[in-house]
Amino acid sequence: MKTPGEFAIERVRALSAYTPGEQPQEAGWIKLNTNENPYPPSPEVARAIARCLKDQADCLKLYPDPVSQKLRAQIAKHHGLDETQVIAGNGSDDILNLLIRAFGDEKNAVGMTVPSYSLYEVLVAMQGAALTKIPFAADMALPEKEIAACPANLFLLTSPNAPTGVGFSNAQLARILETYEGIFVADEAYAPFADESAADLLGQHKNLVVVRTLSKAYGLAGLRVGYALGDAATIGILDRVRDSYNLDTLAQSAAAAAIADEDYLAVTLEAIKQTRAQFEKDVKARGFFAYPSQTNFVFMRPCDGQGRHSSELTRHLFETLKASRILVRAFPNHPLTSCFLRVTIGTPAQMRALNTALDLWQTNAPPA
Amino acid sequence: MKTPGEFAIERVRALSAYTPGEQPQEAGWIKLNTNENPYPPSPEVARAIARCLKDQADCLKLYPDPVSQKLRAQIAKHHGLDETQVIAGNGSDDILNLLIRAFGDEKNAVGMTVPSYSLYEVLVAMQGAALTKIPFAADMALPEKEIAACPANLFLLTSPNAPTGVGFSNAQLARILETYEGIFVADEAYAPFADESAADLLGQHKNLVVVRTLSKAYGLAGLRVGYALGDAATIGILDRVRDSYNLDTLAQSAAAAAIADEDYLAVTLEAIKQTRAQFEKDVKARGFFAYPSQTNFVFMRPCDGQGRHSSELTRHLFETLKASRILVRAFPNHPLTSCFLRVTIGTPAQMRALNTALDLWQTNAPPA
Repeated sequence: MKTPGEFAIERVRALSAYTPGEQPQEAGWIKLNTNENPYPPSPEVARAIARCLKDQADCLKLYPDPVSQKLRAQIAKHHGLDETQVIAGNGSDDILNLLIRAFGDEKNAVGMTVPSYSLYEVLVAMQGAALTKIPFAADMALPEKEIAACPANLFLLTSPNAPTGVGFSNAQLARILETYEGIFVADEAYAPFADESAADLLGQHKNLVVVRTLSKAYGLAGLRVGYALGDAATIGILDRVRDSYNLDTLAQSAAAAAIADEDYLAVTLEAIKQTRAQFEKDVKARGFFAYPSQTNFVFMRPCDGQGRHSSELTRHLFETLKASRILVRAFPNHPLTSCFLRVTIGTPAQMRALNTALDLWQTNAPPA
Repeated sequence: MKTPGEFAIERVRALSAYTPGEQPQEAGWIKLNTNENPYPPSPEVARAIARCLKDQADCLKLYPDPVSQKLRAQIAKHHGLDETQVIAGNGSDDILNLLIRAFGDEKNAVGMTVPSYSLYEVLVAMQGAALTKIPFAADMALPEKEIAACPANLFLLTSPNAPTGVGFSNAQLARILETYEGIFVADEAYAPFADESAADLLGQHKNLVVVRTLSKAYGLAGLRVGYALGDAATIGILDRVRDSYNLDTLAQSAAAAAIADEDYLAVTLEAIKQTRAQFEKDVKARGFFAYPSQTNFVFMRPCDGQGRHSSELTRHLFETLKASRILVRAFPNHPLTSCFLRVTIGTPAQMRALNTALDLWQTNAPPA
């Protein structure tokens, strides 16, 4: 008989799985590698969970609401949309997977820019869908015309972009949407940290889908909640391929409580944006290049005393920081990213610790 | 431009989504329709969640452990297996989806018996995989030879079976496994209520996968946790197609706490089995036919005063019970199930209320 691995279908045998950022399970790390929020979620979250558990007999023993109705209503209210324009998922990764399963196959290509969120390519390969890649140039300007003319049935744009942090304007996206013939996804994991959101374009463009997560702005990475906004017909298609009970009862309640607490969100967003502005100044003062960030991270290119950069130098800094238990993220597999490090905006104290480590490294940095 | 629905790929446009059992969101129902546990989960579950939340700053703001290591270890310990033989999922539906995505496609058929868990067919259609159905006869005996000779690359057997409740012995499964050339899945959602588990056959058969859920025996339907046991190579394949963060932090901790409380499980299982034995007697005393149950439900065929049955009569009883706010499950779409109702074993008080309603109905039942 064949071994178990030999029974796997061809495209799964060939698959390189997505590698999530390191999640050390022990304490003591300054974790600036996976764009988590340095602040805890709204205190309303713990209260909502406690309320559920007080009535635990029913809350946990019964199946969750299969359509997450109360959560969808809260999301709709937050965005000024109708409930039929909202779907909730087990993290935005669940939503992205549903989009690719609904709109991509051998004949219906999925389009993406490169570099962007590396999960897209894995999900497309799992689905066996055709893939169309549109490269960014080094200035990371949005390749508007190429996307607008792209024959892909589904296009995924990380907006603001990752790992660069570069934002795109609604004017740019609207120009693409006027021409592009397919389902266009603005994957807005970082939009709460940006100047604009494509959610404001939903009224004019039926083929637009906006994907959001509670993992970053809401400080709820541990809870796995994301959502999509779109035309009711698109949402209906996504519901058709969705697992009936994709969100557990506690996650539904906790997420609704977090979204309802608009004041808390505003305060933490402002704090992170202020820390970001300061860190962007610090990076520039070091002579490092960084793209202007509309996210909760800064994509920076370290350099040596002579202002020279290299992927080896970047690797050296990555390892030096790791040795002092500061985790950041490296992207060694693409020429446009291999000299950069992506640094999550943490608390001011965490950024001070990082700056101290960077000072020390710069003093002793090898030549690039 | 096409409408959003027209962009969906062909097999998704044609898909009939799975219909979950009714989950009324208001109180006052006797809910015997989706095989939830009538007893709450172990009190250790709420304690585990409270412990997480006390340390909320980190617990919710950071991503979960992507591999659910502590939960896998607890499951491995429970079954006397190695951690490499365990994968955890967002409900066993997540696991079933991963199995089909890893082992089924156009060329690699998925096999199933009919009737069984109706989700299989939906997941296979979503994947665009070939499907092979092996029918049960009315006695619901396991079609051993047909399964053993089935050319499917992946075979899904609901064991004990749903919606009938009929159990299959390990001797039968071992005979199939000696011949069957593919990944054989014993989908054991109800195994804790049965006499035997295929988990005991894992040592001898590398192509066996056992799927479990915490939704039934552990009273945790609201939390969405399931798992699979199998050869480490099979588990490795499933991990490759798994979402990196498929289980949130609270669910991981709560599930591990539930599984660790072996005593609580034993007590609730025993209570349910006793109630089941009594209800099986009650059903027989009414003159209804029912398959012997190795699950937490009874699949019964109502009859009129003359002992005659019909799908119309069954429908009448279903509606009568619903009018008295007792929910059970009907399966009108297959000739072997359309005269039956599936009744979850509730508390003794719930079964008394059901019996009272059944008494009343039988007194006034129309002719079949």
